[in-house]
Amino acid sequence: MMIGVIGGEQCSPAEGETAYAVGRELASRGHTLVCGGRGGVMREVCRGARSEDGVTVGILPGDDRSDMNEYVTVPIVTGIGFARNTIIPRTADALVAVGGRYGTLSEIAFALIAGKPVVTMGSWDLTLPDGATAPLLSCDDASAAIDACERLAAGAS
Amino acid sequence: MMIGVIGGEQCSPAEGETAYAVGRELASRGHTLVCGGRGGVMREVCRGARSEDGVTVGILPGDDRSDMNEYVTVPIVTGIGFARNTIIPRTADALVAVGGRYGTLSEIAFALIAGKPVVTMGSWDLTLPDGATAPLLSCDDASAAIDACERLAAGAS
Amino acid sequence: MMIGVIGGEQCSPAEGETAYAVGRELASRGHTLVCGGRGGVMREVCRGARSEDGVTVGILPGDDRSDMNEYVTVPIVTGIGFARNTIIPRTADALVAVGGRYGTLSEIAFALIAGKPVVTMGSWDLTLPDGATAPLLSCDDASAAIDACERLAAGAS
Amino acid sequence: MMIGVIGGEQCSPAEGETAYAVGRELASRGHTLVCGGRGGVMREVCRGARSEDGVTVGILPGDDRSDMNEYVTVPIVTGIGFARNTIIPRTADALVAVGGRYGTLSEIAFALIAGKPVVTMGSWDLTLPDGATAPLLSCDDASAAIDACERLAAGAS
Repeated sequence: MMIGVIGGEQCSPAEGETAYAVGRELASRGHTLVCGGRGGVMREVCRGARSEDGVTVGILPGDDRSDMNEYVTVPIVTGIGFARNTIIPRTADALVAVGGRYGTLSEIAFALIAGKPVVTMGSWDLTLPDGATAPLLSCDDASAAIDACERLAAGAS
Repeated sequence: MMIGVIGGEQCSPAEGETAYAVGRELASRGHTLVCGGRGGVMREVCRGARSEDGVTVGILPGDDRSDMNEYVTVPIVTGIGFARNTIIPRTADALVAVGGRYGTLSEIAFALIAGKPVVTMGSWDLTLPDGATAPLLSCDDASAAIDACERLAAGAS
Repeated sequence: MMIGVIGGEQCSPAEGETAYAVGRELASRGHTLVCGGRGGVMREVCRGARSEDGVTVGILPGDDRSDMNEYVTVPIVTGIGFARNTIIPRTADALVAVGGRYGTLSEIAFALIAGKPVVTMGSWDLTLPDGATAPLLSCDDASAAIDACERLAAGAS
Repeated sequence: MMIGVIGGEQCSPAEGETAYAVGRELASRGHTLVCGGRGGVMREVCRGARSEDGVTVGILPGDDRSDMNEYVTVPIVTGIGFARNTIIPRTADALVAVGGRYGTLSEIAFALIAGKPVVTMGSWDLTLPDGATAPLLSCDDASAAIDACERLAAGAS
């Protein structure tokens, strides 16, 4: 499976630890990581995945690899700026959001458009204008988050 | 000014009336409309703007003009699918969101990333993971909404 | 009709005159210009179109309007870099290429993929790997070029 | 290194054999393949790279993996249609073009814009409007083609 992990380029130490644990967990189960390839949550999740020899795909916004973190094994240089935020949800079978702000929100929105499962860890809760609740599943633990990704992606396909 | 209007491809009669009034109001003041160019809120806001002879730009997702509404005067055929949702906030000086679901949410997210003012009419309210409130200004009335766009865009530039 | 005009950001004085004449000609016939919105050929064709009060659409690569020429009336800020070169051929009913280098070549390639007529004025000639000649129509004169656009776009639709 | 291989979705048996040999050669040297991930030349080069256990990245144009060939190990689902042709040259350190038509031409154009070396095998020759020859290096043999990619990419960085 390809698991997308999204979150801020700046992150708190706690978010960094969560991202690292998520990366470790998904790689130890043989999944491929897809993320934005830069700093903060993206760097920590790549670092965690590499500690288990995982494949780490970084979907970069710029015109070259200069802003890539050192734990990306497959850098994709899109050159399309923030529009690359649409590619991560398309590419992933399920996503984990760790913290984050508006960039993460845009990726959650595209995941929901594409019908991809999203697990949140200290990230967005969303109530639609019509009062419905967006189908985001909150988890506290990396192992439970990847369990949920596996279960929900199987149901979505 | 270029004013972006975003909202669902399906909309309620009340949302359609709101969109029509917003289109009328912005065109009567000489602003250019930029929107997604399709049905629902997009069609009604274009229809309103055309009733005042406004310029209506439709940023279309597909490979041709087949899904364009009949009130678009400047169709832009992007061929990039939902990634076109990033272009509307970049192009507009300020945005008005009328209702909407996840597509509208993605456009609001990109507007907030780009620092563009967003006025909401029966649309999303957003609380960030850290508890802060996103800077969305709720309005009930088309005239007040365009007033706010003009005032906020002047402050943003 | 929407007529795309493509060509280099640097251009010779002769290419600039050609671009100006093409802009004048298409606007005088009521067509809308779509181009990349920047300098060189793009600036001169916009200037020509504005001399006849034409509508000039500029599909900009960057994140804001800072690199737009002063004759663009409808700036579209894509934020997707050179990938915006795919939007101009999709949006235009027919294209005129004036000089140009690799950016212009990419736009001609996308026009040919999309089956859009391309008229060349001192621009690329292309022979395919299998020895066939690409369907590019060479013209020396702005009036003949727009005649060809009108005739070929009618046949293509 | 990441080596891009581009070419038609339909290809002759001879082009298929060339693509297979190029895939085998680059993977045997430990390079990662990046391509469009679909049929024809793309399928054969992936098949060749997989025969040497290579990593094969497919940059897909559609909204899901349905058009991916079975030899892609890292599918990137862009959802941006033909605009994905801009991502392959950005991502690769050097490119090999095998045959091809206008899609391949657009990728060569973007490679030349980005200053990436392009080796051709029975593919496009290009003469610029000003009479200059585009810097494309023709090769007949897979081993020589990958040698040239390695040498030219080292010079370009």
